Amino acid sequence: MTGSNRNLLITTDVVDDKSIKTLSKHSKVYKLADLAEDRLDEILPSIGCLLVFSWPRQLTPERLQRMTSLRFIQSILAGVNHVPFASLSESIIVSSNAGAYSDEVAEYAWALLLSAAKRVVELHVSLRERRWTLKRTLDEGSEITVLKEKVLGVIGFGGIGSVVGRIAKGFDMKVFAFSRKKLAARGVKFFTGTRGLTSLLKKSDGVVLALPLTSQTARIINPERLSEMKKDAILVNIARGELVDEKAIYEHLVANPNFRYATDVWWYRESRESLKTDYPFLSLPNFIGTPHVSGPSGLATGRPVQLAVQNTVRFLRGLRPRNIVNPEEYKTSYPY
Amino acid sequence: MTGSNRNLLITTDVVDDKSIKTLSKHSKVYKLADLAEDRLDEILPSIGCLLVFSWPRQLTPERLQRMTSLRFIQSILAGVNHVPFASLSESIIVSSNAGAYSDEVAEYAWALLLSAAKRVVELHVSLRERRWTLKRTLDEGSEITVLKEKVLGVIGFGGIGSVVGRIAKGFDMKVFAFSRKKLAARGVKFFTGTRGLTSLLKKSDGVVLALPLTSQTARIINPERLSEMKKDAILVNIARGELVDEKAIYEHLVANPNFRYATDVWWYRESRESLKTDYPFLSLPNFIGTPHVSGPSGLATGRPVQLAVQNTVRFLRGLRPRNIVNPEEYKTSYPY
Repeated sequence: MTGSNRNLLITTDVVDDKSIKTLSKHSKVYKLADLAEDRLDEILPSIGCLLVFSWPRQLTPERLQRMTSLRFIQSILAGVNHVPFASLSESIIVSSNAGAYSDEVAEYAWALLLSAAKRVVELHVSLRERRWTLKRTLDEGSEITVLKEKVLGVIGFGGIGSVVGRIAKGFDMKVFAFSRKKLAARGVKFFTGTRGLTSLLKKSDGVVLALPLTSQTARIINPERLSEMKKDAILVNIARGELVDEKAIYEHLVANPNFRYATDVWWYRESRESLKTDYPFLSLPNFIGTPHVSGPSGLATGRPVQLAVQNTVRFLRGLRPRNIVNPEEYKTSYPY
Repeated sequence: MTGSNRNLLITTDVVDDKSIKTLSKHSKVYKLADLAEDRLDEILPSIGCLLVFSWPRQLTPERLQRMTSLRFIQSILAGVNHVPFASLSESIIVSSNAGAYSDEVAEYAWALLLSAAKRVVELHVSLRERRWTLKRTLDEGSEITVLKEKVLGVIGFGGIGSVVGRIAKGFDMKVFAFSRKKLAARGVKFFTGTRGLTSLLKKSDGVVLALPLTSQTARIINPERLSEMKKDAILVNIARGELVDEKAIYEHLVANPNFRYATDVWWYRESRESLKTDYPFLSLPNFIGTPHVSGPSGLATGRPVQLAVQNTVRFLRGLRPRNIVNPEEYKTSYPY
């Protein structure tokens, strides 16, 4: 599978020196940060392999066209929806880093779910603004949600989703999972297809989105799906902001004050995730937002980088890389 | 064990009608809210049994002295540190409601632990104040804590503590427990005595306080204990505010910005838990506070009331009540 040209371009500074040394055994390694614009243009036709974090602005569609030797792109981010598939030849293999962040992102999903269920953020903010007295009871419609024996719906049951489900067992919750194919996991009830999704949403007290963003999953949570959910359900998103329709979720939160949306991920503006929103989400008490931080500690420990490097080495050694994605699912009207 | 006099005084309105009906089969039931002051004074000497939530202001030490038939006090709150033991004859049996809130309070402990570990409150507040951009990395010293394979220290391994430990297993954490006596629980390492506590604190990445407040446990977390903890540890309190030395924890939080304290419970002012503090905790980014709400949903479902009523019926039927506390542990200089 390896092309005759094994030059590798690393477009991020999160790759540690030891990893670069490892990669150097199998290829000539260039770091984007070290290259002046004209030097970059010079080497582009020689690059067979790209190791990327977020997509580098320098690699415009024009420059991609000149990368005639390019055979393989490895993402360090778990998802690959930032890769410009529309500008890539079909022969180029793209690998995600699925599973690399599973443990920390699943923990983060639980942090958001519990913060919302127990209204920790809302109550803490109220205390700061001195809008509380100790009364040991909460107003009707603003109860604390007890999770024990309730249903957790996990949409997308890959690396992250399955860890989210495992943790749910410790809370004595029932776990329902939505996936493309019917999988098997102990104590988990699986749902597939649109009707399966509707079923799961109707029965779930908490719902965690753990799907990649593809043409099939974009805005999977839309007005219709929201209308199927319990009025006091909690929706958690640690995957991609665009899985949820922005206008629909805002209107749903306003209309259903006991419904809660807690997200670490945001909608796209000009092809990039952005904290700028069309609606004032942060002024709603039933919204919790954090700035896409579920993964960084994983970067600090280096595990996602290691996995991406290992997979790149597989390609360079002529082995079939893991986590190859289907480009068809990413050639959509959502070009981010 | 039952006194000849079975008159029961219920001093709270959280007891439902069905429960009152059940109790009426075994005793003459009075409700404090229905009694004028002079009528209350009239019946006091006839009351054999008290069912209380927080301690009723009307039952002053003077009035308690006139309750010559009193034999049994049942608390609906889990703890009994609000019972004025110093004003009670030794012959009066006092039962806590230990375990009644275990599941919801343990869940709440996890909500606080994860909110602090993942900095959900801090980041959400920062977003509201527009002090953030999407950069996918955090500043040094403000990392997200990954819990997997870390150590959770649970101080007090009763009803709440053991559920906290069970949940920790789902997160793939090691569980260390501190208790009076060495207990046995699968996959849990136990520590006893002051040296045991020191050991546990030194090794724990997260610490959950799940102890009753007694003369032995008041301010168990003091400057010395705090100095033994990891500089980036997370301390969670869902038990009683007075387990932690107020001045010491404030100074520790200021001196160690990566140490976090998340609490649902507060210090006492004039014998009552109060949101008034001696230090501006709510202005610290490494402090999370909520207004003692971990239990209310339990009240809504009625389980703690049911358990307290069942135990009161045991007493009224001449059986030994469960959860009898040792009054010696509550006759302290902490009269709350």
